[in-house]
Amino acid sequence: MHHFEYKNNCLYCEQVKAEDLAGEFGTPLYVYSKRTLLDHFLKIKQAFAFLKPLICYSVKANSNLSLLKLLLDKGSGLDIVSGGELFRAKKADCPGEKIVYASVGKTVQEIKDAINYGILMFNVESEPELEKINAIAADMGKAVKVALRVNPDVDAKTHAYITTGRKETKFGISPAEAEKIFLKEEFYPACSISGIHIHIGSQIIQAAPFVRAIKRITAMIERLRSRGVEIDSLNIGGGLGIVYDKEKPQTAAEFAARVLPLLKDLKLKIILEPGRFIAGNSGILLTRVIYVKETPLKDFIIVDSGMNDLMRPSLYQAFHLIEPVTKHKVKKIKKSKFSDIVGPICESGDFLGRDRCLDVSQGDCLAVFGAGAYGFSMSSQYNSRPRAAEVLVEGKKARLIRKRETYKDLISKELF
Amino acid sequence: MHHFEYKNNCLYCEQVKAEDLAGEFGTPLYVYSKRTLLDHFLKIKQAFAFLKPLICYSVKANSNLSLLKLLLDKGSGLDIVSGGELFRAKKADCPGEKIVYASVGKTVQEIKDAINYGILMFNVESEPELEKINAIAADMGKAVKVALRVNPDVDAKTHAYITTGRKETKFGISPAEAEKIFLKEEFYPACSISGIHIHIGSQIIQAAPFVRAIKRITAMIERLRSRGVEIDSLNIGGGLGIVYDKEKPQTAAEFAARVLPLLKDLKLKIILEPGRFIAGNSGILLTRVIYVKETPLKDFIIVDSGMNDLMRPSLYQAFHLIEPVTKHKVKKIKKSKFSDIVGPICESGDFLGRDRCLDVSQGDCLAVFGAGAYGFSMSSQYNSRPRAAEVLVEGKKARLIRKRETYKDLISKELF
Repeated sequence: MHHFEYKNNCLYCEQVKAEDLAGEFGTPLYVYSKRTLLDHFLKIKQAFAFLKPLICYSVKANSNLSLLKLLLDKGSGLDIVSGGELFRAKKADCPGEKIVYASVGKTVQEIKDAINYGILMFNVESEPELEKINAIAADMGKAVKVALRVNPDVDAKTHAYITTGRKETKFGISPAEAEKIFLKEEFYPACSISGIHIHIGSQIIQAAPFVRAIKRITAMIERLRSRGVEIDSLNIGGGLGIVYDKEKPQTAAEFAARVLPLLKDLKLKIILEPGRFIAGNSGILLTRVIYVKETPLKDFIIVDSGMNDLMRPSLYQAFHLIEPVTKHKVKKIKKSKFSDIVGPICESGDFLGRDRCLDVSQGDCLAVFGAGAYGFSMSSQYNSRPRAAEVLVEGKKARLIRKRETYKDLISKELF
Repeated sequence: MHHFEYKNNCLYCEQVKAEDLAGEFGTPLYVYSKRTLLDHFLKIKQAFAFLKPLICYSVKANSNLSLLKLLLDKGSGLDIVSGGELFRAKKADCPGEKIVYASVGKTVQEIKDAINYGILMFNVESEPELEKINAIAADMGKAVKVALRVNPDVDAKTHAYITTGRKETKFGISPAEAEKIFLKEEFYPACSISGIHIHIGSQIIQAAPFVRAIKRITAMIERLRSRGVEIDSLNIGGGLGIVYDKEKPQTAAEFAARVLPLLKDLKLKIILEPGRFIAGNSGILLTRVIYVKETPLKDFIIVDSGMNDLMRPSLYQAFHLIEPVTKHKVKKIKKSKFSDIVGPICESGDFLGRDRCLDVSQGDCLAVFGAGAYGFSMSSQYNSRPRAAEVLVEGKKARLIRKRETYKDLISKELF
């Protein structure tokens, strides 16, 4: 469900014509729908209302400050993974007690900054990290709350690059090792080790892997409690899949129906970390056709956005629906021939979509759907291409929330 | 051959200790050796001296202005693929007559800018592009020189994402179609269509695919000349492979020995576009170990550089040699256990190297070799990580050529 809809063959973001946005702000352009963003946040909030969880939006999915502020206004917290994301959280005025901080590679400075800001807790990914956090906190004379990220060794059956809950990955601590750490909490006097964090991967469309992981963890919690360990929070991570193509992902309500029964009697503060679920379908990428290049094998629709703007197709072989923002009433093309939608980058890996059936001409504007998460946040200046602008739509209004980069920006840090 | 060498177990870039550079400039840090960069340029220049070719360094491999200036000083031209790269070429004071411009997606503005700057020629990738260039040039009252990029349908047997000479790719024009265009040059009165451009891919370690492609093209040139078409230049592209691991790529001299005989009697201006060959082994990425995380299956050496700094391992499954900059005299680790060198990014795809045998501890500095090409140029701010600094070493001197980004830089274009 999102608020990008066709009316009279024209795509609208809420009440604004996509074509008008491309005209006013240029392309490539990321366009976000405020209503879609907030709807998805509220869907999770409502589905889990019974537990009154802390929902920490995963900043890495889309870290634009204007989007963070919208979510914070609705009561969201933030899941951060770097000092840069902590900086963003501060800029967006996120209260420290609504910030959880994961990452396998937290540096000394990042840990200090996070302690100084008074974040709710660190999601700790290894014992060396716990040692470092404890030493830094002790040095600073502060006590910090820690959740251990436990790797439940569950296969989420998603792309290998975004599977994070198997024991072969760099993430988390095995249940056995985590139990040992909980039982020697006194070794870490500056840390209150009282939470458990799991995050098994991304774009997971069924509840089953979550259920398996939570069951393993609740059994672990029972064992620990029987040995006198106090556990007061469980962060069940993010990873809820969305519709890119023909997926039929669980809804927030369906997901909650499966996992709530496992959580409701645990007397734990529950934390969730949705990212893609909230931002993914809240954004599209608008791009314009530069050339249509016909070849005997297939046609190439060459557009002004490339893998530098949207990395997912190239990196994960991810599917994004691509449609013209204005649909012609009479079809012009022979349906027998398929097209690749490709960018201007000088690599064969630079494509946005392959083997599509599209009726477009030079100058037409296309919308790449599902580009709200891991779109701009992964973008680069490869081939010396300035990064795209970002626009936020609210009803009839559109507001530039990130200016398009200029050629000058490409070299602004260079000394020559 | 490069000027990153160990002396007494310490890595040096020319005469500067890598450890000192990491200390002074911080990590992650790209370090380039001026001598290595210029040596590789000169190797190509010498190998092809008989032909007096125009060597156009491929800016996309590494577009730092300081490196461009070094190469321009030695007589190099530039191969550009975007308006941003044209902007860089201007900033580096590259004469227009040494610039060739390829890309499947040149926009109107980019074409205008290039004509205004008086570039040597456009490498044209499709007939619609030729139509556009002709129309723009006619409008501007200018005559422009055009080479047709011909796709010789040769399999360079490299990674699918960087194979560009097969007919299934978006690049170039088939020989048959190109011949037709040459024979109707009068349809494009503002264009002098007198060159041919081929570029069959990247990281090609043998001469055979080049030889096959050039033979196809020289046969085509003979056919065209017999029909009265004047061809005055042949751009044989780039794509020369380098040593990342155990490859035994052809040297510049070996490559020249194979292709010179094919080219020497053609009475053509020869153009070459080396990128990786010049920059690849001229740069390393210095990164520091944040944690060593031991697991029963394997260890994870968690470093402060991620896929946002160096995308190649994740995107192309590319191998980069990784070594500590200071080697311990006594080995500490059991050789039976392998390590993955991974970054702090929250994705399983975030790794720099897998299954390596490395003797390192927290705080150690590592060098990722072969990072001079497609390293910084593909880097991003994913996970809100400021991009790395870049340093150029010349003998005993090291000079910052790109400042490290700050947290403020992450949001400098945002309006909130």
